Amino acid sequence: MDKPYVLGLDMGGTNSVLGIVDARGHVIARTSIKTQQYSDINNYVNALYVEAEKIVAPVGGFEQIRAIGAGVPNGNYYSGNIEGAMNLPWQNVPFAKLMSERFGIPCRITNDANAAAQGEMTYGVARGMKNFIMITLGTGVGSGIVIDGKVVYGHDGFAGELGHTCADRSANARLCNCGKKGCLEAYCSATGVARTAKEILSATTQQTALRDVDVNNITSFDVFKAAEAGDEVAKQIFDFTGTMLGQQLADFVAFSAPEAIVLFGGLTKAGHWIMDPVVKALNDNVMNLWKGKVKVLFSDLKEADAAVLGASSLAWEV
Amino acid sequence: MDKPYVLGLDMGGTNSVLGIVDARGHVIARTSIKTQQYSDINNYVNALYVEAEKIVAPVGGFEQIRAIGAGVPNGNYYSGNIEGAMNLPWQNVPFAKLMSERFGIPCRITNDANAAAQGEMTYGVARGMKNFIMITLGTGVGSGIVIDGKVVYGHDGFAGELGHTCADRSANARLCNCGKKGCLEAYCSATGVARTAKEILSATTQQTALRDVDVNNITSFDVFKAAEAGDEVAKQIFDFTGTMLGQQLADFVAFSAPEAIVLFGGLTKAGHWIMDPVVKALNDNVMNLWKGKVKVLFSDLKEADAAVLGASSLAWEV
Repeated sequence: MDKPYVLGLDMGGTNSVLGIVDARGHVIARTSIKTQQYSDINNYVNALYVEAEKIVAPVGGFEQIRAIGAGVPNGNYYSGNIEGAMNLPWQNVPFAKLMSERFGIPCRITNDANAAAQGEMTYGVARGMKNFIMITLGTGVGSGIVIDGKVVYGHDGFAGELGHTCADRSANARLCNCGKKGCLEAYCSATGVARTAKEILSATTQQTALRDVDVNNITSFDVFKAAEAGDEVAKQIFDFTGTMLGQQLADFVAFSAPEAIVLFGGLTKAGHWIMDPVVKALNDNVMNLWKGKVKVLFSDLKEADAAVLGASSLAWEV
Repeated sequence: MDKPYVLGLDMGGTNSVLGIVDARGHVIARTSIKTQQYSDINNYVNALYVEAEKIVAPVGGFEQIRAIGAGVPNGNYYSGNIEGAMNLPWQNVPFAKLMSERFGIPCRITNDANAAAQGEMTYGVARGMKNFIMITLGTGVGSGIVIDGKVVYGHDGFAGELGHTCADRSANARLCNCGKKGCLEAYCSATGVARTAKEILSATTQQTALRDVDVNNITSFDVFKAAEAGDEVAKQIFDFTGTMLGQQLADFVAFSAPEAIVLFGGLTKAGHWIMDPVVKALNDNVMNLWKGKVKVLFSDLKEADAAVLGASSLAWEV
């Protein structure tokens, strides 16, 4: 009989979550390790294996596992390598090879945002859609582009870096972590929102609840709470962030004419406070033929499951 | 025996060129009509038919023609309709249906830039490439995006409008023909280059041969001749134009990670004067992983043939 399960790994800069997934898309067990604790990739892979053994034992051991799918920062679908990762202890390693050698089963990898897109298409709001763009709004801004039902990898496996398209070409554009200036990520990631909050707070003397929060650790959730309480500065922060995102989405629409754009991650918890300016800026900036026609949706997958599910869906292709 | 020929139609805002193409990609006969002379689409289709009869007769008549492929402004691959064309006498017409009814053979359409991409992939510098982006620099700026060997049409058939992505978000960005502000087309089309020339000429008192040209009718070729003669203002115009284009290309690379970007049309006649700033701006603006890795190529198809060949390649799919 065919092996009934796959493993899905969501490797984040902080946590690495590993789950057992069945053919119907249920995460039936999960475990995790701290990514940054392992400066040697072999130790990291080994720690994952040790944890995996524990959750795999109750379902019959590794004989029951078909393959591993992993969503990995800077993971290259074609080569199986991690290439030039900035937020990991290992910049360049043959990750898929190391995993499949240690686990004794095949391993496929892609980057985390592509994995999320795959998960959204298989189990989420994009089910049945052939053309959509997934934007992940977390520590960074990632993207997974689906065209004709397939995730786009491009010539080298690194397609879909929409967080590093230029949202501001002016002289005072923000510096991005990637070394470029004006990237979308510098405005619409968690740190981007915190930077915006800081800038607006120092540019105004307006009374706001956000002055009670440590300005270096302001989160989207702090801003959300303030907006809900009627705070004008908080609304301004979401308006600015949503406008930057929406006008950039308009350019993405001109590229692949998607049916929908799916937003995922921390910032989406701000609900209509972020959705309204995004949709307005999108429609203000697309060509007439697309005005009012491209759906903007929040992901409906549980954040804890989405990345693991998406990663695991790669393993079924083995 | 199979019918040995197809017809390729390149419908431009000014001329409509129709050619007979054989299976090896040779345009064996061609004819043309003036697009704007026909305010009624039925008269246009009929005029094309009358012209087609003349060139088709020597090869054995329409019985020898398999199908028609047409590259049409705002042509929708899925519906076969022209939808919202701004530079044609007819904004919305079921063009493929009208053509196939009048000609008695199937007709497939797409927009002109997608047709050019198809032609480049089948017969040009992109032969053998699975991932590239075609940018047509003419009266407007068009694009055809090829991913995994297929032209991208998107959810609605209108993907690949890269000429209308935003190249300048500043308050004094140029107004584009499409009604939006700051579009790439407003800077890198033929009229965009003329606008740049005008702006630079009026902003400076520098001596330049371009002052002898009617400023409203300056062409890329005028600027090219001046640059070749060492004219500094002319070089400045190409530097500005190439930089605007190259930095925008960097964002396209972040989308689909193409092996190459193929430039086509009038502006490419400026050779290294335009290529050098394009390549520099591209590499200055892509993420590190792509620096120096994405080829920028000029199309090597004869301009007269490329559009007809590209359009005709659709007909072989029938």
